[in-house]
Amino acid sequence: MYTHSYLSSIVISIFEKMGCSRKDASTITEILLKAELRNIASHGILRIKDYHLLWKEGRINTSPDIKIIYETPTTAVVDADNSFGMVGARRSMEIAIEKASVAGSGWVSTRNSNHFGIAGYYAMMALEHDMMGLCLTNANPSVAPTFSVERMLGTNPISLAVPAGKEPDYVADFSTTPIARGKIAIAEKKGEMLPDGFVQDDKGYSSQDPSILRRGGAILPLGGDRVHGSHKGFCLSSMVDIMTGVISGANFGPFVPPAVAYLPRKDKEVGKGTGHFFGAIRIDGFMKPDEFRERMDEWIRTFRNGKAAEDQEKIIIPGDPEREAENRIMKEGINLVPAVRDDLKAVADELGVKFN
Amino acid sequence: MYTHSYLSSIVISIFEKMGCSRKDASTITEILLKAELRNIASHGILRIKDYHLLWKEGRINTSPDIKIIYETPTTAVVDADNSFGMVGARRSMEIAIEKASVAGSGWVSTRNSNHFGIAGYYAMMALEHDMMGLCLTNANPSVAPTFSVERMLGTNPISLAVPAGKEPDYVADFSTTPIARGKIAIAEKKGEMLPDGFVQDDKGYSSQDPSILRRGGAILPLGGDRVHGSHKGFCLSSMVDIMTGVISGANFGPFVPPAVAYLPRKDKEVGKGTGHFFGAIRIDGFMKPDEFRERMDEWIRTFRNGKAAEDQEKIIIPGDPEREAENRIMKEGINLVPAVRDDLKAVADELGVKFN
Repeated sequence: MYTHSYLSSIVISIFEKMGCSRKDASTITEILLKAELRNIASHGILRIKDYHLLWKEGRINTSPDIKIIYETPTTAVVDADNSFGMVGARRSMEIAIEKASVAGSGWVSTRNSNHFGIAGYYAMMALEHDMMGLCLTNANPSVAPTFSVERMLGTNPISLAVPAGKEPDYVADFSTTPIARGKIAIAEKKGEMLPDGFVQDDKGYSSQDPSILRRGGAILPLGGDRVHGSHKGFCLSSMVDIMTGVISGANFGPFVPPAVAYLPRKDKEVGKGTGHFFGAIRIDGFMKPDEFRERMDEWIRTFRNGKAAEDQEKIIIPGDPEREAENRIMKEGINLVPAVRDDLKAVADELGVKFN
Repeated sequence: MYTHSYLSSIVISIFEKMGCSRKDASTITEILLKAELRNIASHGILRIKDYHLLWKEGRINTSPDIKIIYETPTTAVVDADNSFGMVGARRSMEIAIEKASVAGSGWVSTRNSNHFGIAGYYAMMALEHDMMGLCLTNANPSVAPTFSVERMLGTNPISLAVPAGKEPDYVADFSTTPIARGKIAIAEKKGEMLPDGFVQDDKGYSSQDPSILRRGGAILPLGGDRVHGSHKGFCLSSMVDIMTGVISGANFGPFVPPAVAYLPRKDKEVGKGTGHFFGAIRIDGFMKPDEFRERMDEWIRTFRNGKAAEDQEKIIIPGDPEREAENRIMKEGINLVPAVRDDLKAVADELGVKFN
């Protein structure tokens, strides 16, 4: 078990050794550790091994010049200059918030970026400004569109953060697939089969075998199969891809670059790097923030007090589990599973950062 | 089989007889018939019987004074004055487009409205202005949140329209449930059972019985059950409810009024009527429209040419089936099933409109 501040200092040093400024290293660290606190370890310290490998191969720029390359009073396209995803993403969301402060809403599409951690972090940046925040990203392809066997889309998450009053804020943050990729890998390691509706084989038939992804299989869109609405999951995922990849000038669909070093760069590119989309909407563009916060409180209480199913305890409001985890883990400390701790230690040793 | 123009003239007369202006009657008719053309008959002529019953009970205002009640350069709240949904919705999307023309993007949340037909109609209004269009609406509750037995959400659809170049435009338009309500009703009429993952019983257990909705059951969110990601469907549906119901000052969640006359008004209201949300985003807020259209063409071709599953023909791009239906049905004519034709005839007779 590690304290947040100890792990922070280690991770900041690691990214500084890779050539990041103190400010950028702190940004990356804050967002990776936010994932640990919110119990989304798949987007936390686990990623450092691959980030480091990508950097060693010269596939990440640690001295980026992040620039607005196109803008109007409410919109912008940002070029993240191939930085670690968090650096360009946070700057992009700041720009969306600045534009919203002046114009009511701000929309930023970002190209030439990389894996950026949890989408929820950026959406939540809007909350303290009396704004709603939206964040989308595309990702390297692992998902087959309905009726297809080709991996053409990432797990393309959506996050929306909405400020409440006395109740905790609403924070939805979810991939547009039935299951996260990390959970399939865990089932494979444990030798367990998957439920139907998560993956398919190389001909497009349903499979329960988690190792199928190594043999031409693909993850299914949210909904699973066509009967259960996978075409709606495909709609969602493709909406995210268009807003993040097409309109930013980044890569889209099957051309989005990998976030891991063991996969090579793509032969064909249709733009620059990975794409994100950020939105900030001022609450007082629609009603007085106090009135809105009261209405959100009533919305949250209405749903929280809805009648639970016989075998369940209660309805879970989006953001509840992650907030509860954050409060608990900040007190108790961050637990790294042995493999992740060992990987972190190996990176730290290689870069000359003392970690034990 | 009826021609579009003949049915149009009948339906316009029907709404004029209910007290709508020629302009409003034409708007309502155009959008109802657009649903017929796009082969979404559940949102077409079928609805006129209930619209008429609601009007007879004084639950619809056919002389509405639709007003902006709050606005900034990029946002507005519109009060639809309890009009037939199409009237306030179309005006709201026009306002979003006007704001986007000046400010880059426009966002309108609408209160005090009613059932508005197909969401895709409003999203598509943006296309001819070199804009992307977004449309969301809440609806009377039929869906239980994950872990609940209470019907607290509507089928809350999402539509996004994106202009392409040489390829046809991208138009996603889908409810945030695995299945439309109408299809459950059809299975019940035919005495057929449903696949797992569509509905649950009054204790929250999975059911295959379409009549369960009459006995305390509920539709499930997209994803079906928790294992298959229904909490993500709940996130989506609640996002739509917040953007349409909470921030507009309309009703939200379980308080959204019914769109059918056999259900009474709600005892408790937390706002006015049904809520919608409309967005328009100028493409040139991000890049030159020609460049964007070329990129969208490449996106569409990439996905259309993706490798099909062994038992399937091809990947379907969002909007393809509806556009193909529209081209075909406009030529061949609109077919009304006997029950719908009889209902239309009964309404026409009652209002003194000649229809045969």
